[in-house]
Amino acid sequence: MATATLHSASLRTGAEVRAAVRAGLLRHPTSGAAPDFVQTNVAILPKDAAFDFLLFCQRNPKPCPIIEVMEPGQAEARLSAPGSDIRTDVPRYRVYRNGTLTDEPLDLKAFWRPDLVTFLLGCSFSFEHALMRNGINLPYYGTSRNVPMFTTNIKTNPAGVFSGPLVVSHRWVPKEKVVRAVQATSRFPAVHGAPIHIGDPKQIGIKDILKPDFGDPWAPSRPDDVPVFWACGVTPQAVAMSSKPELMITHSPGHMFVTDLKDEDLAVI
Amino acid sequence: MATATLHSASLRTGAEVRAAVRAGLLRHPTSGAAPDFVQTNVAILPKDAAFDFLLFCQRNPKPCPIIEVMEPGQAEARLSAPGSDIRTDVPRYRVYRNGTLTDEPLDLKAFWRPDLVTFLLGCSFSFEHALMRNGINLPYYGTSRNVPMFTTNIKTNPAGVFSGPLVVSHRWVPKEKVVRAVQATSRFPAVHGAPIHIGDPKQIGIKDILKPDFGDPWAPSRPDDVPVFWACGVTPQAVAMSSKPELMITHSPGHMFVTDLKDEDLAVI
Repeated sequence: MATATLHSASLRTGAEVRAAVRAGLLRHPTSGAAPDFVQTNVAILPKDAAFDFLLFCQRNPKPCPIIEVMEPGQAEARLSAPGSDIRTDVPRYRVYRNGTLTDEPLDLKAFWRPDLVTFLLGCSFSFEHALMRNGINLPYYGTSRNVPMFTTNIKTNPAGVFSGPLVVSHRWVPKEKVVRAVQATSRFPAVHGAPIHIGDPKQIGIKDILKPDFGDPWAPSRPDDVPVFWACGVTPQAVAMSSKPELMITHSPGHMFVTDLKDEDLAVI
Repeated sequence: MATATLHSASLRTGAEVRAAVRAGLLRHPTSGAAPDFVQTNVAILPKDAAFDFLLFCQRNPKPCPIIEVMEPGQAEARLSAPGSDIRTDVPRYRVYRNGTLTDEPLDLKAFWRPDLVTFLLGCSFSFEHALMRNGINLPYYGTSRNVPMFTTNIKTNPAGVFSGPLVVSHRWVPKEKVVRAVQATSRFPAVHGAPIHIGDPKQIGIKDILKPDFGDPWAPSRPDDVPVFWACGVTPQAVAMSSKPELMITHSPGHMFVTDLKDEDLAVI
């Protein structure tokens, strides 16, 4: 049994991160590991729910950007991470039965079934790199704090058993950087894309911008900072969970699956 | 029974086109009807094949750009054409059983089943408008001739029972317009997006550029015109057909479903 742990910043590629996880050398959050590589949210559902969930993602591409969907029982992400094994390559998982968290295992060997369909969904890391490259400061980035997230009054497009409100992440953007923030994130529809709202939080049903529903509060650093909102990857997880599927497996928050894709591979232009 | 026919150019919106089709007043190809509105390819499959086909489209977004997927038995395109009925709003259909064309009906009343899933896939009309707006001449446009199409040596990403080669459409582009053609079509990933190849046809397995596998030959008008190739919507239909599904229903070539979306709604930037 390996007991040593690696510092994730020493892992330069997605394949190196996955190998370290699989060897039991990396069990902590993946933020900062293989910084140029695309990390993904993970949602695993039985096939009888997978068609509806795939439809839900297809109808709501901003909160649910699909990087890859595997076939029933397939454990290797053949397109985005050849040689990977979704049952061993995520540092920590969560297992939900009928909507209740029942296990937080380090691998899925005891849980895997031939009817399980794995969804890899875009994660905000790629997208935040684009903001930072464009001079937009994210004070929580690389700390133990998280981006503030809010449940809005915006409905997602329902699909089969799946429906619910859009969850957004919120970032303060200096007023002279708002247009740049729209441009920079529009290049990446595969990781939430352009904002869904700019300005008054009340217009999308947010009562108090300093009291997020998830994540940590973030106060503006200058009085003319503008609140900008993007569709958030918490949405599909919240929506799936509220339908109380018999079994659903996800990554543990912050413990992502790291692919062989680079952020720039996802840019549309 | 209505026996009069309308000239499609007199129909200005998607809803007007669909109403005319439903009333039996429009039975001819839809090219030129409601010119600002998005027209789509139609593929209808039983639910047991629909998950694999949805996966195939998701894995091959350039040839198979999804505009909308309806739920099993759902006949209304609620997102892209509220109030529509896919069983009556396409001017002419094709019905294939086990891969063989068996009927070419004017509506689907005798064929509809509660397990049928309808896929609306982006069509080249929207995309060609973008080229023409940018000064790229398409001599076949608005004539009875069709764009030349070729089966390439490029493999699609398989999904379940679906696999096969990529089919491309080919257009000659003046050498000084090639970059513009890339830019103009990159804005529209929902209708095939950027080219998949520029230059030597042999590099993608095309032996004779003047002998297309589908459509009509097109000779260059100037010796320095550059051959440019885009993923083609014939791909998913060819791939689906080669798997010989028990039942598959499509639009008849050129007889498209017209939505309420406008071309510009599909632009990512």
